[in-house]
Order: sequence, then C-alpha cells, then structure tokens
Amino acid sequence: MDKLQGKVVVAQGGGPTAVINQSLVGVVLESRKFPQITKVYGAVNGVNGIINERFLDLTQETTNNLERVAVTPSSALGSTRDKPDAKYCEEIFEVFRMHNVRYFFYIGGNDSADTVRIVNEQAEKSHYEFRAIHIPKTIDNDLVLNDHTPGFPSAARFVAQSFIGLNLDNRALPGVHIGVVMGRHAGFLTAASAVAQKYPDDGPHLVYLPERPFTMEKFLDDVDNVYKRLGRCVVAVSEGIQDEKGTPILTKFKDLGCDAHGNVQLSGTGALGELLVQQVKNKLQVSRVRSDTLGYLQRSFMGCVSDVDQREAREVGEKSAQFAIWHDTDGSITINRTGYYSVDYQIQPLDKIAAKTKLMPDEFINAQGNNVTPDFKYYLQPLLGSSMIEASRLRAPEAPTIRKKD
Amino acid sequence: MDKLQGKVVVAQGGGPTAVINQSLVGVVLESRKFPQITKVYGAVNGVNGIINERFLDLTQETTNNLERVAVTPSSALGSTRDKPDAKYCEEIFEVFRMHNVRYFFYIGGNDSADTVRIVNEQAEKSHYEFRAIHIPKTIDNDLVLNDHTPGFPSAARFVAQSFIGLNLDNRALPGVHIGVVMGRHAGFLTAASAVAQKYPDDGPHLVYLPERPFTMEKFLDDVDNVYKRLGRCVVAVSEGIQDEKGTPILTKFKDLGCDAHGNVQLSGTGALGELLVQQVKNKLQVSRVRSDTLGYLQRSFMGCVSDVDQREAREVGEKSAQFAIWHDTDGSITINRTGYYSVDYQIQPLDKIAAKTKLMPDEFINAQGNNVTPDFKYYLQPLLGSSMIEASRLRAPEAPTIRKKD
Repeated sequence: MDKLQGKVVVAQGGGPTAVINQSLVGVVLESRKFPQITKVYGAVNGVNGIINERFLDLTQETTNNLERVAVTPSSALGSTRDKPDAKYCEEIFEVFRMHNVRYFFYIGGNDSADTVRIVNEQAEKSHYEFRAIHIPKTIDNDLVLNDHTPGFPSAARFVAQSFIGLNLDNRALPGVHIGVVMGRHAGFLTAASAVAQKYPDDGPHLVYLPERPFTMEKFLDDVDNVYKRLGRCVVAVSEGIQDEKGTPILTKFKDLGCDAHGNVQLSGTGALGELLVQQVKNKLQVSRVRSDTLGYLQRSFMGCVSDVDQREAREVGEKSAQFAIWHDTDGSITINRTGYYSVDYQIQPLDKIAAKTKLMPDEFINAQGNNVTPDFKYYLQPLLGSSMIEASRLRAPEAPTIRKKD
Repeated sequence: MDKLQGKVVVAQGGGPTAVINQSLVGVVLESRKFPQITKVYGAVNGVNGIINERFLDLTQETTNNLERVAVTPSSALGSTRDKPDAKYCEEIFEVFRMHNVRYFFYIGGNDSADTVRIVNEQAEKSHYEFRAIHIPKTIDNDLVLNDHTPGFPSAARFVAQSFIGLNLDNRALPGVHIGVVMGRHAGFLTAASAVAQKYPDDGPHLVYLPERPFTMEKFLDDVDNVYKRLGRCVVAVSEGIQDEKGTPILTKFKDLGCDAHGNVQLSGTGALGELLVQQVKNKLQVSRVRSDTLGYLQRSFMGCVSDVDQREAREVGEKSAQFAIWHDTDGSITINRTGYYSVDYQIQPLDKIAAKTKLMPDEFINAQGNNVTPDFKYYLQPLLGSSMIEASRLRAPEAPTIRKKD
C-alpha cells in the first residue's frame, strides 16, 4: 500500500451535540498514530475556519486534555452554519492544496456530507490525491443508511428524562402540559419522550410528529379525551409539526403567536408551545395549561449522556481515520445495527448520504398518528445507555374514611 | 416523657422538587419506629387530601419501594396550590381530631409553614394535644433562618449544568443567548448559573436578579459591551426581574409579548425571553439571538440531583419526626451551616418562618447589579454535591498560515 503523506484536517459543522467531541478526539488520536501524517489540524468554526486558514495544531494537544474535551458537549473547535457552494468548496480545496492536506474529516449532518462530497469531487477533477470522510452527527437522527446517528441517543436520553420529570410534575399538580421538542422534519427525538411511559397512566399521553399531518381539531379532541379520562394530560410535540400540505402549524396560526413586528419565529422560541396552550385554554376550558420548550438544552446540557452514544461517537471518529489512512477510502461512515444490541461501522458513498433525510418509519407510529408503537421503544431502548433511571410510585393502599359523606 | 399516642399525617405542598420525596420518606421511616404511632398516613394532594379524607396508609408501604420513591422527583403524594384560610384550617383540624391524628408534617414553602401555624393554633385553642412541624422545601431558596432549603441545591445544579451547556453552545455558534430561570422574588436559582463561568470568557456574562432594578437601557448597554468584547454573550435572567417600583418587566412591555387575547402571561411561558430577544435584535442589530426558558425541568428533571441535597432533604424529614415524637416540639426545621461544609438542624417557631421571604444578600451581588460575587460562588459550591462536572477546552496552539492575507 502506498502511503499518502500529508496533513489531516478535522472540522465540526452544524448544531452541537453531547458527543460530537468524542468523534473529534477519535479522529485526532487515531490519526496521530500514523507516521505519514505530518500534522493533525482542527479547523476553527467548521469550513469557515478552513477558508480563513484558522487551524489549531492538534498534534500539539495533550492526550489527557483531549480526553477531557471528549466528555464536554458542543463542538470544541467551534461550528458554523455556512453551507458551502461550489465556489466556497474551491476555496476549501485551494487551502487544502496549499497546506498539503491529504485527509479531511468533517463531523456533521447531511449538509456537511454534501460539502465533503463537493470538495472530494474537486480533488478528483484536479487529480489531487485526497481522502475525505463525512462523520455522522445529528440529534435529529435523520441520516439515511444509518441505524441511528451519534448525538441522537444522548439527546433522546435528555428528552426522556425531561418527560419523566414533566409527567411526575403534571401528576402532582394536574392539568395539561405541552412539551415542545426539536426536530423539523424527523420525529425521532420527540418520539423519545415516550420512554417516560412506565405506569399505564403515565405521560406523555400524546405524541405528535412531523411525519403525520397535524390538525388542531384532532389535537384538541385527543387532549380532551385524555383529560376527561385521567384528569390530566402530558403532550409531546415536535417543533416541526405540519398540516397535510407540509405547512408548519405555527405559520398557519400566526395571528396567535406574534412579536413586536408581527413576525413568526419557528425555532428557538416558545411560540408553538404557547399557541397550543392558548388553544387548549380557550377551546377546552382547562385552567391549568402549561408548556415547556426544551430548546437548546437538548443538544448541549452538560451531564446527561448515553454511554453507548459516547462509545459509538468515539468509534466513528476512530474508524474514519482507519478507513481513510489505512484503507485509502472516501465516504460517509454509517452505524449498522447487527444484533440487540451490537453495531458495526461501514463506509458508504457520499452521494448516498448527502442532502437526504430519513424519517420515522411507519411501524414506529401508531395508527392514530398521535403516539409511538412498542417497535419504536424496542428500537430506542439500547441506545439510551446504561443506568437509565426510572420513576417509582407509592403503592400503599388508601386508608378508610371516617367522616360521613353527604 | 409522656407518650402522645395517635396517627401521623404527612403531606406535600406547592411546587415539586427533585428531593421532596426524600423528606417524605425520612418522616415515614422514622415515624414508623415509634410504638405510640398507630398509623402513618400520607395526604393525597396536600391539604386538599386532608379535608377530603384522602390518605394513603404508608404504614403498609414497603421500605424498598419507599427508597425507590425517595430518589424520584416531584411530590409522590401529589401536591396542591390551595392556600388554606382559617375556615379551611378548621376543617383540617376537624379531620385530624376525628382520625386521632396527633402529628402533622407538612413539606412545603413559606405558605405551607403558615398553614401549619394556623392548624397548630387551633389545636392549642381546643386543648387538643398535637404536634405540627413544617419541613422546608423550595427551589427558590427563600425561607428565612435557613442557610438554604432542600430542593434548591438540585435545582441549582440543573441550572448550572444547563448554563455550562448553553455557554458551550453559544461559543460554538456565537450570538446572544438569553436563559430565563425560575424565581419571582429571590434570585438564588438564577445566580446559580454563574457556576458555568470556568474560563475567563465563559458565560453567563450577565446575570439579572429580581433583587436589583432592571432597566432595558442598562441591559442593552451591558449586552452590547460584552458582545463587542467577545463576539458573543450569554445572559441569565430571572423570570421575576422588575423595575425600581417592583413592576415585573414583562408587564411594562406587554405590547411586545401578546397572546390571542392580548394577555400577558408571566410564568410558564417563554414570553420574557422572547421580549428580551426582540429588544436585542431590534436595538443592537445582532442577528443570532436566541432564548431558552428553563421552565418546569428546573424542578422536575429526572437525573440531575445534588447528593448533598438528597441527604439533607432526607435528614430534615427524619429530624422532624424526632423533634415532634421524641421531643414534643412544634415548629419549622431549619438547616444551619456550621462549617465548610457541615450543617446542623434546628427547630424554629413557625411564626418566624411563615409567610416571610429571604432575598439574595447584598454581598452576593456585584456593584453593577448584573452578576454575582465570588462570595456567592463560595456559598453555593458545596451545595451542588459531589462529582460536579466541568467543561474543558482545547488548548492547542493556532497553526501558522501560508496564504498571504490581503
């Protein structure tokens, strides 16, 4: 095997996750082992740092500190929302050539996979020997060909632990509680709330996903039924819920959620939760109605992580370095489930992953479109990691009354 | 010592906390040891369960299950927002007398302390031998005569871990981020966000508390200064921030935060965060401005708890039973700091605790009124419990550039 000598560049893109630095550290530690690697650079703020030549020399980072960074959530190199076009990718490639960068690892979602694909094509066209690998990362769990993606299990665990708490809170002080979860197109993260259903009357009692059309009438009817049956109701709702035409629900009711300029914000705000709260208050005459928007904590909260996710995120980083440097391969690393529970990693052509979105399969959603199935819970369970906590209830009998009831 | 024979009633009031069931279990396990205790009843939904004679017979609960309930957040007996008046307290007393209840333990905030006080006075007037104890609980940490209150340390830990994450997220994708924390009058919980400040440029860079008058001008000026200096800014804000006259800020700007009916919601919504986001967007022309309202997760999230808090919450329950049953004493249990870090428990007259509010002392707030002091961090540190996590950064040097800068 002829050895391609040069630098490694690793970068992180898109929204941070709890384990994105595991993948970074996996790439760095593995790459540093190869004698043909002259330097391991980390690009500051993703592709933006590449075109601005802002690199940290990770060859000079201590192993101990790398291990501490690995357990710290959110991109240690900084991230970016830049979505490179062909021109931008040319600039990336130009900097790579100048620095004799021969290996590029980009940790990110499907947009990042697309960037890797374009840069790689330019290298091929220029007959520049180059290996580029996309390392999956997204709390949305929406990358095709992956059983699941690093970052999702930890975010799912956060959502699950949140809803265990919200259900207990709602049980102690009954009413209707609506929790809004991230996920614009894929409902996996919202669906993770269903782990909180331990006892038969535990919430979330209703789970609404972007994969099924949402109508306000059906929603109010569902809530009304649960509330009449249990005297309380916990709802998990994806921020991306939409009508049958794909129009986000918040846009349809924009007269209800307004800001100083009458603009509707779709994300990073509590507007959807408040819209639904108002509807329940007004239409169902329930007095205690509250909402929580789980927000950025879902991807950044420090101290809620799945150890399975940590391990896999590290391994996809490590395997990427092996695929590229040892095996001279380009592509996107995928996680494949091989047992219950075991995984293996493969490498797939970039164009099979890039700019594609995986949605919740039909068998994970109930017929009514307002909850998940046991199949989904079976799928999710091993991802949440070890020592997953659960809530317990008092089981003492009611004491006999003395006072005559009139 | 003459032994007062009869039943124990224990109840939980107000907002749930992560450790409120530790206190419950402390009372139950300790009470069950005394031969003069005929039954240990738990009132369902606080005082409301008492007047409706809804009791669980906790004498028939297994110790194992009690221990599992102890580590479950949110009132296992259910809670209530009822604030009993004299008439209501008479009804409570009537039920107690009927059931030969001789010991009453009410776990709650300062409103609950007041209920205990009134019921106790009625017993005295009626020459009914009776011991009533208030057991402190509030994430607001606002009970007088207490160094701190059970529930606060775990909520503070949740807020701290949240802001560690929000700061990392904001560092990876820079902009202005505003996190809204619970606390209508006392700023302790918001102040806990400051634990996230590890590296000198870590957020939260600004902390706004109800104890200091808030002006929009000063806020915008502060944010502008931090943003110009660091290119980003993380703000922690108490939901209870008010102007110099004590008017909640959200009320003053109600034209900006509206719902379907033009009503302003002060709590359980993201309205304050969104108001501040709009102000920063409009007045400072910062494009990436986001807010998170930490919401009910602060008091109910399952899996983020301070072991110090757990231990103390258990002990205040246990000590209550000892004070009442062994020592024939009434009152409110207080936590007193005796060293760094050690505590002792005392019992105080109910009227010294009831319906009073403790605020952040001046030495915990900086001169500018927009952050906390090292004194506060020193106070808070031991409460957060063991294995408090911290974030780590890459420290690798920047690599030399090659491309000529123009």
